[in-house]
Amino acid sequence: MEFGYYLVLGAWDLEFKRMIMQKYTIGIDLGGTNTKIALVSAGGRILERREFLTKAYRNKNALINAIAVSINQLKKKGAQAAGIGMPGFVDSKNGIVHNLTNIAGWKGVALKKELEKKTGIKIYVDNDVNLMTLAEAKYGAAKNASSVFCITLGTGVGGGIVIDGKAYRGNTQSAGEIGHVSIDANGPRCNCGRHGCVEAYVGNSAVIKRARRLLRHFVPRNDGLDKMTPELITELAKKRNRAAIAVWKETAEYLGRGLVMVINVFDPAVIVIGGGMAGAGAFLFKPLRDYVKKNALSVPAKKVKILKAKLGNDAGVIGAAELARI
Amino acid sequence: MEFGYYLVLGAWDLEFKRMIMQKYTIGIDLGGTNTKIALVSAGGRILERREFLTKAYRNKNALINAIAVSINQLKKKGAQAAGIGMPGFVDSKNGIVHNLTNIAGWKGVALKKELEKKTGIKIYVDNDVNLMTLAEAKYGAAKNASSVFCITLGTGVGGGIVIDGKAYRGNTQSAGEIGHVSIDANGPRCNCGRHGCVEAYVGNSAVIKRARRLLRHFVPRNDGLDKMTPELITELAKKRNRAAIAVWKETAEYLGRGLVMVINVFDPAVIVIGGGMAGAGAFLFKPLRDYVKKNALSVPAKKVKILKAKLGNDAGVIGAAELARI
Repeated sequence: MEFGYYLVLGAWDLEFKRMIMQKYTIGIDLGGTNTKIALVSAGGRILERREFLTKAYRNKNALINAIAVSINQLKKKGAQAAGIGMPGFVDSKNGIVHNLTNIAGWKGVALKKELEKKTGIKIYVDNDVNLMTLAEAKYGAAKNASSVFCITLGTGVGGGIVIDGKAYRGNTQSAGEIGHVSIDANGPRCNCGRHGCVEAYVGNSAVIKRARRLLRHFVPRNDGLDKMTPELITELAKKRNRAAIAVWKETAEYLGRGLVMVINVFDPAVIVIGGGMAGAGAFLFKPLRDYVKKNALSVPAKKVKILKAKLGNDAGVIGAAELARI
Repeated sequence: MEFGYYLVLGAWDLEFKRMIMQKYTIGIDLGGTNTKIALVSAGGRILERREFLTKAYRNKNALINAIAVSINQLKKKGAQAAGIGMPGFVDSKNGIVHNLTNIAGWKGVALKKELEKKTGIKIYVDNDVNLMTLAEAKYGAAKNASSVFCITLGTGVGGGIVIDGKAYRGNTQSAGEIGHVSIDANGPRCNCGRHGCVEAYVGNSAVIKRARRLLRHFVPRNDGLDKMTPELITELAKKRNRAAIAVWKETAEYLGRGLVMVINVFDPAVIVIGGGMAGAGAFLFKPLRDYVKKNALSVPAKKVKILKAKLGNDAGVIGAAELARI
């Protein structure tokens, strides 16, 4: 009797401590343009947020200091840990930033150690797409799915994997890098130097190039072709412009080739598509789903859900806060 | 004090029971040609084996009965559970065989239930390539690796995934199906009806076709071209026949295209290559490793090990026995 009593009390006590201590965590999303910092509840709700221009700080150290100041302020509201998402190649086990895609001066930075020294709380570091995937898998479009593949479509094409609620990072923390898988060995040259990468077909600049080609008979040169954006293509598609609809259909089929690989090899329950281009909605998703149903292995293709990301620009801070909730 | 004492005793008792009970398990590998049954130790060693021609049994029920008889005999030596690997599409959670690639009459068979009724011990069912992957990840070429992708090269091209010592099967138990990923939308038609699948380039018949084409100037028609086999190509390559060497090099580059996808998306620590064609050794592995280093993302490509399967024909029964050791 006594045995059971102690055991139950012990477990309850632990659970209670966990609840109190981890009620709030801090999530940070360091981007090429903006840096966002938020206090996030255990349910993934943002209670307070801050945001500043990343380039307002003249160098890496000034930026780290600004982040530390915000953490120290939010810490007072009960947060005991913080997660931070970085746009680039990160060693999440040791909290080291190897290098960032669009921000100079971040080679081999022991970010976890530096921020822990400046704030006195536990800091966790990961790649931004991994954290977006974690957020969508926990609170967003793929809530409660056992296996999630998340793709971001923007200037670059990134990807992340979550299995059973945990980020799967792979052997060298590179898992999910769908952007630089080649879908045609004789395809156009990609920024990475290889040929026919998914990014060379569905990255922002490839889509805009496609739009310029397909739309040239529909749009007078001074009426948008020069300032073409994914949003403009979608706007034209909504007005039933056939060429604009074709831009998204073609894009969907190239993206589909990449997703077929992901489906056949990884067999995820949900594929989440985020980033600016996901705003094309059904113009992108309908032909994409059709292509996948036709070209991937039939059993996994029938079951996989291809969904638009739900958390938008908040996914980064929510995922980062989730990473800190261990 | 008493609390701790009971707790330790309880844990020890459980561990002891586990050791006694799970010392031996039975592994079964049901193949299109042979069915193998083995008693396997907790260290993955085969203590006793049986084998019979699958086609010696006139139908599914006769085959299941023969397997049950063997299980009941091996059960007496202390085995408390058995695993069985099937060459086809299986629901491993419920132990149901949906259909087999080369054996007729196996649609929707509740194999787990049937064998449990006939033997009185726990039965676990899985796909054969998944179990081969499990064996190689636990005791073979990828021993102790955190993430393993295993490919079998034969008539078909199969694949399996093990993460942290556990089979990763995906949402519909189709994960790892590298054979039907297309590497060229305009490529040759595959048996599955799609175009340019990996299997259409590196499956047995594709390799033999390639050999016939490249070797036609080297081998008199009556001296092997008709009876071309992967083994013969390797023999010729060992005699420095340039065309035979080219057959493996070309095969390696097509396989490499598939592996680049696996490396970029899944970032495994080890890729294990098994099946008859792995016997080509360095003629296949050297150009394959070169291709991957050049074409996959540099960080994961530098770290991934591409190794030949180690357990040969025993991988199936060892993996099946491992599945039963839960």
